[in-house]
Amino acid sequence: MNPDFSPTCPLPLTNYPNVVMAHGGGGRLMQQLIETIFVPAFHNDLLSQRHDGAVFPLAGKRLAFTTDSYVVRPLFFPGGDIGTLAINGTVNDLAMCGARPLYLSSGFIIEEGLPMETLWRVVLSMKQAADLAGVQLVTGDTKVVDKGKGDGVFINTSGIGVLEHELVISPAGVRPGDAVLLSGDIGRHGITVMSVREGLGFETTIESDCAPLWSLIEALLGQGIAIHCLRDLTRGGLASGLNEIAQAARLGIEIDETAVPVREEVRGACEILGFDPIYVANEGRFIAFVPEDQADRALAILRANPLGADASRIGSVAATSHPIVTLKSRIGATRILDLLSGEQLPRIC
Amino acid sequence: MNPDFSPTCPLPLTNYPNVVMAHGGGGRLMQQLIETIFVPAFHNDLLSQRHDGAVFPLAGKRLAFTTDSYVVRPLFFPGGDIGTLAINGTVNDLAMCGARPLYLSSGFIIEEGLPMETLWRVVLSMKQAADLAGVQLVTGDTKVVDKGKGDGVFINTSGIGVLEHELVISPAGVRPGDAVLLSGDIGRHGITVMSVREGLGFETTIESDCAPLWSLIEALLGQGIAIHCLRDLTRGGLASGLNEIAQAARLGIEIDETAVPVREEVRGACEILGFDPIYVANEGRFIAFVPEDQADRALAILRANPLGADASRIGSVAATSHPIVTLKSRIGATRILDLLSGEQLPRIC
Repeated sequence: MNPDFSPTCPLPLTNYPNVVMAHGGGGRLMQQLIETIFVPAFHNDLLSQRHDGAVFPLAGKRLAFTTDSYVVRPLFFPGGDIGTLAINGTVNDLAMCGARPLYLSSGFIIEEGLPMETLWRVVLSMKQAADLAGVQLVTGDTKVVDKGKGDGVFINTSGIGVLEHELVISPAGVRPGDAVLLSGDIGRHGITVMSVREGLGFETTIESDCAPLWSLIEALLGQGIAIHCLRDLTRGGLASGLNEIAQAARLGIEIDETAVPVREEVRGACEILGFDPIYVANEGRFIAFVPEDQADRALAILRANPLGADASRIGSVAATSHPIVTLKSRIGATRILDLLSGEQLPRIC
Repeated sequence: MNPDFSPTCPLPLTNYPNVVMAHGGGGRLMQQLIETIFVPAFHNDLLSQRHDGAVFPLAGKRLAFTTDSYVVRPLFFPGGDIGTLAINGTVNDLAMCGARPLYLSSGFIIEEGLPMETLWRVVLSMKQAADLAGVQLVTGDTKVVDKGKGDGVFINTSGIGVLEHELVISPAGVRPGDAVLLSGDIGRHGITVMSVREGLGFETTIESDCAPLWSLIEALLGQGIAIHCLRDLTRGGLASGLNEIAQAARLGIEIDETAVPVREEVRGACEILGFDPIYVANEGRFIAFVPEDQADRALAILRANPLGADASRIGSVAATSHPIVTLKSRIGATRILDLLSGEQLPRIC
């Protein structure tokens, strides 16, 4: 069955004969990989939505289906571990589709030699996170690879959720004038993982923001907010989330940097490391695009939940079809907020 | 969130302080790992079914949900590659739940340095296999890990299917007197992969049996066969599939070895390698438990499909609650067919 190498192979477009770390980094190279390899090969309407998951009708309901693999290094960090990440990451992708998360699968790829105690800690952590998020782990798979062919444990979790409303929540729903809300302060997850990995010693004060976000979305929907689009901010941070939506919606987005909450210790760590917090990964933050006239009410709903206590309105959708994100900085200058082309923090999720 | 190490940790039960290759081999050690770590931690009714996937009601329909990670080495082999395997394996797990496979997710964990051409070949192969099986790949994820922390590419595919009948197809449905049908000759996938990996030179004559099995199940269901249970025969081969069903159903199974089709070249390779074909992995074979009075008709339906041309009736379910599998050998002796305790062929899927 090995297919002959296709004459229409899109490889020359990528300029990379081999996969590099940045192809998994959430920036421009990952976008190129997806657009030149995966989307053309598997082309279908659902995949083309470029959403956090696929939404399709089944038996008179709309279901959401999503998948994520977790390869974070190290496995344990302040505020979470690969287990909490593997549950919350997939729960959040379903929530971003506007779906109530219901059922999760888990596929473990374990490196020979992993201490059984480590596996047990990760599994317990998944169980606690699943209970907290109100989802059930209903099916699984275990593979073991030779020592030196893996890295402790990789976990894939896929998830199924159900949409209990009539809204179409996707980049296609974004409209000029929409308010852009951010659910809390940014950059903690990436800085926490980086700090532990490199032994930088920030870890006593910074914890990952890793958290399940469905309760926030449920509250918005339950109180009648006509959400246009949602995106959780993981690899590539706030900058990538905004750019992905701008490109998919073919609309510009204008952001006010002073409205973006960043904790002092994160800002300090970013200055030392030479990072911009707007590109740093989160695991418990999202942006919501809502109608302008519902923005204040939506913000109040988010702030009423401890997970959204620091929510703020950070900008709005422009009436331009140039799909660029502009950032009005603290000193008043306006610059284009682009996707990272390379890799800032590998393997943060 | 790092949980404290639980005082109820079931580790002492396993006698293995660290994960070994056999924990992923489909035999007794994998069963122990699942039963002492995963099932107690994630305990719920769906997981306890110990089926190839979870079946649950949603919106008035019954859906099936399953996941598998693929870590086969080498990536390409006669009759398939990791891409065909990743589609067919998950399609087959859905089919074994009696579900029409509909939607698949794919999560790639790529090792830095993988030639882009290799990735493209795998992706094309997945596309062809998905088209052949009538499923759509609707959502995906890409991670890249450092060189030396992976092995080319690992792929997870999860899948959703729908049950279009009223039968309960599961180990709990098996009844004393049921006929046990096998869909074709066994051992080709494992011997093929082993042969290529070790450079044994059998590869000119043996090809993997990797294939999507839904068309066979669809035909059985469509022609009114009241299937009691299905199991595809992957890691651990026919012996593991039979033992898993016997244990889950709490019933004995009696098998006639002379009725089990094995190709001459597979038998020859097994003799050289010291393997028993009954333990060797397949990727396009399953066993079906059907009512005795429908066995002949079910066999005829299977044989009418090229994928089931060599189907045969290999035994029956005994009226004993001892959950053991007995094998009447070619020379007439009867022995207990046990689970492998160790590892025969690592990373064959």
